Amino acid sequence: MKFEILSRDRESKARTGFILTEHGVVETPVFMPVGTQGTVKAVNQKQLNEDINASIILGNTYHLYLRPGTDTLKNAGGIHKFMNWDRTLLTDSGGYQVFSMSELRKLKPEGVEFRSHLDGSKHFFTPEKVIEIQRAIGSDIMMPLDECTPYPCDYAYAVKSQKLTSAWAIENKKAFEQTESLYGFDQYLFGIIQGSIYKDLREKSIKDLTSIVFDGYSIGGLAVGEPAEVMYDTVDFCTDMLPVEQPRYLMGVGRPENILEAIERGIDMFDCVMPTRNARNAYLFTWNGILSMRNARYKDDLIPVDEECSCYTCRNYTRAYLRHLFISREILALELATIHNLYFYIQLVKKAGEMISNGKFKLWKNEVINKLSINVNSYKET
Amino acid sequence: MKFEILSRDRESKARTGFILTEHGVVETPVFMPVGTQGTVKAVNQKQLNEDINASIILGNTYHLYLRPGTDTLKNAGGIHKFMNWDRTLLTDSGGYQVFSMSELRKLKPEGVEFRSHLDGSKHFFTPEKVIEIQRAIGSDIMMPLDECTPYPCDYAYAVKSQKLTSAWAIENKKAFEQTESLYGFDQYLFGIIQGSIYKDLREKSIKDLTSIVFDGYSIGGLAVGEPAEVMYDTVDFCTDMLPVEQPRYLMGVGRPENILEAIERGIDMFDCVMPTRNARNAYLFTWNGILSMRNARYKDDLIPVDEECSCYTCRNYTRAYLRHLFISREILALELATIHNLYFYIQLVKKAGEMISNGKFKLWKNEVINKLSINVNSYKET
Repeated sequence: MKFEILSRDRESKARTGFILTEHGVVETPVFMPVGTQGTVKAVNQKQLNEDINASIILGNTYHLYLRPGTDTLKNAGGIHKFMNWDRTLLTDSGGYQVFSMSELRKLKPEGVEFRSHLDGSKHFFTPEKVIEIQRAIGSDIMMPLDECTPYPCDYAYAVKSQKLTSAWAIENKKAFEQTESLYGFDQYLFGIIQGSIYKDLREKSIKDLTSIVFDGYSIGGLAVGEPAEVMYDTVDFCTDMLPVEQPRYLMGVGRPENILEAIERGIDMFDCVMPTRNARNAYLFTWNGILSMRNARYKDDLIPVDEECSCYTCRNYTRAYLRHLFISREILALELATIHNLYFYIQLVKKAGEMISNGKFKLWKNEVINKLSINVNSYKET
Repeated sequence: MKFEILSRDRESKARTGFILTEHGVVETPVFMPVGTQGTVKAVNQKQLNEDINASIILGNTYHLYLRPGTDTLKNAGGIHKFMNWDRTLLTDSGGYQVFSMSELRKLKPEGVEFRSHLDGSKHFFTPEKVIEIQRAIGSDIMMPLDECTPYPCDYAYAVKSQKLTSAWAIENKKAFEQTESLYGFDQYLFGIIQGSIYKDLREKSIKDLTSIVFDGYSIGGLAVGEPAEVMYDTVDFCTDMLPVEQPRYLMGVGRPENILEAIERGIDMFDCVMPTRNARNAYLFTWNGILSMRNARYKDDLIPVDEECSCYTCRNYTRAYLRHLFISREILALELATIHNLYFYIQLVKKAGEMISNGKFKLWKNEVINKLSINVNSYKET
């Protein structure tokens, strides 16, 4: 997979670059909106392209496997054609979803057995199986089956789990090499680094996975409840050891400040449900902190959500109107808020890239984090 | 209000023309999407403009009065600015909503007392009050307070009710003349013809209202459960008596075939929740009948909802994808279905207009109604 670094920050490990897939150029650092079921919730593909400017989105293997299923995806010619998305798409392996359902799954050395959250039917994911599914999906970038450890996670379990993830990584790679893309374009496979918060295990994981050789490396097992400082520290440790010339993806992160801190520590790629989920709960990100749009203070507020923002929502609608839509439980509220939050996230990482290129990243980052930490009104995490 | 007739069908009372308001030209016959709470459910204003090509939409006085309320609307400079809609907007009087809530309202000679469906608070609508509210809303075309009789309605009640509506019409007109637009553009007032299905009462109503003189005439009290033939017959009777040179609006109608039959009988304007509500229930209108998009038969169907349609949805997505979105309860399903159904309705009346101009209306109408009556799969009215 083509990944090129274009500039490096002198004061940190931050860098800019681009990934090239057959579905386009993905400038890094990049934020990937989450499109779990073949749709980024509440926005359409034209809006993702033109209003939000997403160059890459995520799909979830677990969800797409259950619904619409691989037969329907194959029949449609893959996820890009199925959902009419012609830019880059990355899929997770489904491991995270399966391991989130501790009641419904059973871990075995060969893979993980689980019951569908939709109908209770029994399924078995192995490294081979998740590659097969992702071949049917036709994502540009695939993830291997891994075990995502919870937090806290005792050392003994973390050892065992890291070993399993590495063993599966070999199988994932083998399955990747023994199969081919179904739709005439190259697919790539990342490795996922695990090891919980234990540095020796993270080191072992990185050694195992880089010796297998993947197209890029994801850092998994973070953003699962650990303190932010522990997350930053673990990321810092990993990016010191990971190959410089390959993309690094911090899975499931995160809040705007988490993303900026991780960019500083050398991360290139991010995904998180926060902008989309918060949007649907009326929490709007701005360059001056978060607004809770249901708040009565916005009843007659005729300025946009964020006066510094030039998204479709901010160019066309006021806070008063958005509040009215949320209070009235109108569907349009969800769409306008999602457009705004995704635009904000994508502008945030884009701006970070510009600042890295200009040699002004660190100062800018500190200023932005300072401003973002202001909660304009009582904001409760959802 | 400027209304000009451009062409007339030789075989029927059908005609084409246009209404001119300060928010643009409205070509007739026209279908007006319903935007109850200051938003047409599930679509944004850019989509209404560019994808659906709505030249006029509806707002509901009752809903807007309760939420966001007239203070907020005045503060925003009226509904057009509040919701960022710069084309024509028509409001009903709220009468229909109030009379639908038979449990919550009390009819008096001066007006109607009702309780809010939101918080149970008590309110009183009079002819003066609904004009005052619609001045605050700032709709281009306003409706007077009327009593919408249910179906069936006994003659004695219909007599009383028609008398009341006519008495209120005088008050409405007086209030209209004694007040002014708040936002610097002209607002117009229609009269609403009532009289249930009784021709003598319809005649009386038309005489009463045309002697008061309004900018256009609405036919109310239909599409409330009466047989279609009774509706057509009543419409036919009314349009024979109504002034030819003024627009006629058949309130709350209806199914595609109802609209075509009413156009034939001389109606110019329509509104109905059917395209938007059915869309949210996965019922999609096509030129070959209705599709129930949740049906398993569409699981792998890679053609658009309607191959004859060139809406955003049909140009970009397949039936298989739409079905997946509905089955997965994704918000995007509601948006894409709404765009399609509204586009269909607006194309239907536009095409009717073209056929009237070309002198081919009647033949075309019969063919279309024939095709539309095919229910491609089991369709249940919602």
